[in-house]
Amino acid sequence: MCDNVKLAADGMSVRILDQTRLPNDEVYLDLTTAEACFDAIARLAVRGAPAIGIFAAAAFAMLAKRAPMGTGEEFRTHMQQTADYLNASRPTAVNLSWALRRMMGVLDAHAGEGRPAIEAALVAEARAVQDEDVRTCERMAELGLTLIEDGWGLITHCNAGPLATSAYGTALGPMLLGHERGMNFHVYADETRPLLQGARLTSYELDRAGVDVTLICDNMASIVMKQGWVQACFVGCDRVAANGDAANKIGTSGLAIIARHYGVPFYVMCPSSTLDLDCATGDDIPIELRDPDEIKTMFYERPMAPESVACYNPAFDVTDHELITAIVTERGILRPPFTESIEALFA
Amino acid sequence: MCDNVKLAADGMSVRILDQTRLPNDEVYLDLTTAEACFDAIARLAVRGAPAIGIFAAAAFAMLAKRAPMGTGEEFRTHMQQTADYLNASRPTAVNLSWALRRMMGVLDAHAGEGRPAIEAALVAEARAVQDEDVRTCERMAELGLTLIEDGWGLITHCNAGPLATSAYGTALGPMLLGHERGMNFHVYADETRPLLQGARLTSYELDRAGVDVTLICDNMASIVMKQGWVQACFVGCDRVAANGDAANKIGTSGLAIIARHYGVPFYVMCPSSTLDLDCATGDDIPIELRDPDEIKTMFYERPMAPESVACYNPAFDVTDHELITAIVTERGILRPPFTESIEALFA
Repeated sequence: MCDNVKLAADGMSVRILDQTRLPNDEVYLDLTTAEACFDAIARLAVRGAPAIGIFAAAAFAMLAKRAPMGTGEEFRTHMQQTADYLNASRPTAVNLSWALRRMMGVLDAHAGEGRPAIEAALVAEARAVQDEDVRTCERMAELGLTLIEDGWGLITHCNAGPLATSAYGTALGPMLLGHERGMNFHVYADETRPLLQGARLTSYELDRAGVDVTLICDNMASIVMKQGWVQACFVGCDRVAANGDAANKIGTSGLAIIARHYGVPFYVMCPSSTLDLDCATGDDIPIELRDPDEIKTMFYERPMAPESVACYNPAFDVTDHELITAIVTERGILRPPFTESIEALFA
Repeated sequence: MCDNVKLAADGMSVRILDQTRLPNDEVYLDLTTAEACFDAIARLAVRGAPAIGIFAAAAFAMLAKRAPMGTGEEFRTHMQQTADYLNASRPTAVNLSWALRRMMGVLDAHAGEGRPAIEAALVAEARAVQDEDVRTCERMAELGLTLIEDGWGLITHCNAGPLATSAYGTALGPMLLGHERGMNFHVYADETRPLLQGARLTSYELDRAGVDVTLICDNMASIVMKQGWVQACFVGCDRVAANGDAANKIGTSGLAIIARHYGVPFYVMCPSSTLDLDCATGDDIPIELRDPDEIKTMFYERPMAPESVACYNPAFDVTDHELITAIVTERGILRPPFTESIEALFA
């Protein structure tokens, strides 16, 4: 359990752990306006698909309590506008719109009642969304644990741990639960450019929990798998289409292609609320485009990973000749079979 | 032609462009000691396999002129130690040992002559190594250009341009030569973590040359290829084994696997001096392991790419369902065919 999102006891504010400041500083922010909540999602102070849903529900309940007085119709219009506004903060994760629709549904179900009753129902619903996520994560961790064995090497991308949810997380759940039960895993955490959620958050969470974690750059997954160090991939997910196509942090599809090449199973973990039957295939999932400055500059303080975390930093890898179309030298273009074409060059 | 390595007219120093300071500052260093030359290679102030060879030859000639007086035997021993010392600065690129062996061969060929004659021969050889690289790069660029067509999208990893050689570069040669001839390419440059040679050097070189370049994070190659934006991959190379296995910057093998998945041809470009028949396969190529702090901290000044360079920064990508082994939800583990298992979950 981590305190990444917490609706205040009086429902008048939402406290979040500002994830952009990790791992160097643990800074909590108390949010009281729609603009601050929008900003918290957009700049990834709160991130991770389930956590965004939990936060959106809490923010909706808080903003309902802070909504101007007026008729029931005026209140509903105001809250629908609030939901639409928050929903525009990030397009890809379905949990955001799912949570906001759920909260609007509760509002409508209590439409005939007075404002205090509606507000109380919304606060209760926001807490229910969070409580359900705890149980959902526990259940997913148990199921995921059936897929792996003690001593295995695992790889994950981005952060799908406690910071991204309300409990064990999704992809990190089996690792954390297994570790609690005395199992040992060797986890490789992709740093996950450009915003380095793997370096800043996943390596931080696993390291603090005592799980054996090694931080790598995203482009090192191939050399790690080639050496036989990885028996399974686990990633979280922002939206799954009806055919199983899964949108997740940039780089996930490349990791899956590499895993397939090396025969490593690739598991996607998500609450069922992430399954979106309204999207027939992945082509229907909107992909968020972000600021180029995220690539060109580093926004956070250094260092960007906990000091105690191990790193694997090979400067090179070897590309198997079967993957190479041709080798161009000044003495000619060599084609497969290379053993023959290279030998002929020097003959 | 770029001034990345230059043996002084009197042969008493080697001037290098400190590539760790690009793209923000163009700083030149005049090196006069073996330690400074070792350091320049180890910290990547000079990098790129051909440029390392050119630099090693120039450094060897300069250090011969600065070697202590003594007998011919003492001189040879001193220079062999110098060569061994420089050769230990980086293990993977074969051009380093190739150039040093070549210089020792010239020294031995002139062994019976006086020191001035030997030194003059070494300086001449160092200049020959550089001149040959110019012609080699031009020839490779011409050959590489036969593999691509006007209007194509291309992708490259790390930096294999003029900064890595003495002329057009290897992988960037076809792009630069074609651009000079009025052809248009859309080049995607992997930023190349951890030291960001793609962001700092490749995007800088292509941008300055007027080539249409878009900077991406390494983990974005898959989404770029999936959209059909890339018709060929070009990478440089540090050592090719006799069977064609090619060692290059970390991440190259993953890029090749992804290219194969999308049916994009993958071309390795290198001078024939990079082919190493003494390595039967890639398993025989030593892989350099570097400092974890390269991953955990950012050593250079911000920004790390030219301001004018375009970036593509999608926050997510979609993993095709065919690459997913299973989807784990709190309601069960879904297996392919997912269209049926997902539908059944909600039935």
